[in-house]
Amino acid sequence: MAQLQRITISPQQIRDNQVVLEKEQLHYLTRVLRLSDGDKFIVMDGVGKWWLTSLQSEYGEILEALEVQTELKVSISLLLALPKGNGFDDVVRICTELGVDTIVPIISERTLLNPSSQKLERWRRIAAEAAEQSERAFVPTIYEPVSFTQGLNLFEAEQKYICEGRGDNPHLLKCWRQVGEGQLKIVIAIGPEGGWSQEELENAVNAGFKMVSLGRRILRAVTAPFVVLSILAAEMENNS
Amino acid sequence: MAQLQRITISPQQIRDNQVVLEKEQLHYLTRVLRLSDGDKFIVMDGVGKWWLTSLQSEYGEILEALEVQTELKVSISLLLALPKGNGFDDVVRICTELGVDTIVPIISERTLLNPSSQKLERWRRIAAEAAEQSERAFVPTIYEPVSFTQGLNLFEAEQKYICEGRGDNPHLLKCWRQVGEGQLKIVIAIGPEGGWSQEELENAVNAGFKMVSLGRRILRAVTAPFVVLSILAAEMENNS
Repeated sequence: MAQLQRITISPQQIRDNQVVLEKEQLHYLTRVLRLSDGDKFIVMDGVGKWWLTSLQSEYGEILEALEVQTELKVSISLLLALPKGNGFDDVVRICTELGVDTIVPIISERTLLNPSSQKLERWRRIAAEAAEQSERAFVPTIYEPVSFTQGLNLFEAEQKYICEGRGDNPHLLKCWRQVGEGQLKIVIAIGPEGGWSQEELENAVNAGFKMVSLGRRILRAVTAPFVVLSILAAEMENNS
Repeated sequence: MAQLQRITISPQQIRDNQVVLEKEQLHYLTRVLRLSDGDKFIVMDGVGKWWLTSLQSEYGEILEALEVQTELKVSISLLLALPKGNGFDDVVRICTELGVDTIVPIISERTLLNPSSQKLERWRRIAAEAAEQSERAFVPTIYEPVSFTQGLNLFEAEQKYICEGRGDNPHLLKCWRQVGEGQLKIVIAIGPEGGWSQEELENAVNAGFKMVSLGRRILRAVTAPFVVLSILAAEMENNS
């Protein structure tokens, strides 16, 4: 079952043994993921249930319920400003190991680099390899790079944070604990070397993002995602 | 004050404005760190107080009390099995950013590589650069590589853990929380790719190490140290 693509549906979409796919979901499966009839994918209801499913024209046929042990209870999406050089390879690899759901590469004011399509393919290949190595149930989605403004509005999520090393911001872990259990999705934006610009921070706050700290040391942009994923995963999984 | 070497003393060693150095401390300062009379170093009492100190033959003259904001309250020492290739450069860099106190490279059964002295110098240079970038108050100590057995007995620490991905071990964070506040030092051993051998695990347990998990996904050896430091640092610093 490992390394199949997957989508999140609402529990109401399941009727008998079929998943009634919404138009957008069908588009995503057939056009973005390029699945054909009979191809398998994973359907998640966002509250811990997973099914192996086969695409049958406009609906999904449920093949079996899946036992998932290696995925986080809460979906973590990262908006990551693209670093210079090849640092993003390691970011994709390690974030995948640490349980990320979605990575959105961001072209920010301080990272003008617009990566080639080969790079995107490379990142997706790295994510697939890392998902297999770390025995995850699915491969994280790596988006095509978008502008910061586009990134801010990509997700509807209960909790959205933007990391900012300077200033007197509350710790991400403190904010997360105040919200408590029962969240389904969290979106976190992490800036480029040199940090977000003042304008970017203001736009994020206006878009519903809360400014948070990751601790007292100044982290490089490529290190911050590991910290975010490590502390949230430990918070979810330390009962074992 | 950044990037000075430092030693930990007991509060009883301070008399008036002087630090009475023990024989071993003096040896460490003059022979290992190669400080001469008049050179500055940092003295820590292990419970949060720091002083800038000047070496004066057999004692240290206290110059001023230091305000330290960027260091963890608890000293974290990592025993890290050396990976193949150059992966250890990144480990040293990122662990330094994340607040490590001491890194001991370990030659384990599954890592036969014995690095050259140039490598050790390189790691120390990387640690110094990373300490400066992340605005830490001191440079972590990188030991010369030792055998696993030597590593197990290097430190007297209240809490010693060995990370093991397989099996039904309690989460590091859970163990740490049970111990609670007031610890001064924690030692954590992290294995090579492929994990520790059964014999190594048994030796560690006999030496007072407790087996812990870092979560449900299988982590690469080079990723595990980031997780350890991230979750312990967040646990100590999320009050801000």
